Amino acid sequence: MSQTAAPDYSYAGEKVERVALAATDVRFDDRGLIPAVVQQVGTGEVLMVAWMNEESLRLTLTTGTTWFWSRSRQELWNKGATSGNMQKVVRVLVDCDADTLVIEVDSPGPACHTGHRSCFFRELVADENTTPSAGV
Amino acid sequence: MSQTAAPDYSYAGEKVERVALAATDVRFDDRGLIPAVVQQVGTGEVLMVAWMNEESLRLTLTTGTTWFWSRSRQELWNKGATSGNMQKVVRVLVDCDADTLVIEVDSPGPACHTGHRSCFFRELVADENTTPSAGV
Repeated sequence: MSQTAAPDYSYAGEKVERVALAATDVRFDDRGLIPAVVQQVGTGEVLMVAWMNEESLRLTLTTGTTWFWSRSRQELWNKGATSGNMQKVVRVLVDCDADTLVIEVDSPGPACHTGHRSCFFRELVADENTTPSAGV
Repeated sequence: MSQTAAPDYSYAGEKVERVALAATDVRFDDRGLIPAVVQQVGTGEVLMVAWMNEESLRLTLTTGTTWFWSRSRQELWNKGATSGNMQKVVRVLVDCDADTLVIEVDSPGPACHTGHRSCFFRELVADENTTPSAGV
């Protein structure tokens, strides 16, 4: 019975294995960064995707709020420290080849700097569907 | 009443704006790639994160299945073409600064090459939580 695991220890209907940061070869890219998908727990909404370096990942794991590396400002960034829209970390998941993270959070407020709940508020469609007379 | 939009045109509880590929300045990185979060429609499970170049994005928008750029093989990759676990594209979302995608799909089969439903089957924890006697 693979579905008897407690909800906290399953994802996508399968049991989740716990691995320690020190025992995991997390693969940061040549800039020292790893993409982090921030997902609202419960609803599954993808709120944003941002980048972490090793220090921000460690802070995220130990402080219970999300920390990222701002590529534009070249500094650590504690999400919501200014706006008040902090994200409470529920769980950090790492993928099969350890080069991407999913951060499950509880984010009561908006996650996007535009004020939207999610940064993904636009649907991208093939040109012909919306610009039939554009004469591409 | 912001919640009267049809489900197909909302995400994270907000109305989704449709934008055409040709009218959107999608920002590929210096390798010509953009990260794509693949999410199961309905459940919200993040199945995988992979990379798209401009051609794979266009193919994903026009063929109705997911196409990625394999960084290791340096070639286009139609997900599931070999394994049979194709992903049917429901919607492509682009974020506020147009440098990340969410691909909503219907993926009946596993998405991970390990056979897992999702590539995110491991929880990453701070060292002290799982290795209390490791003497770090």
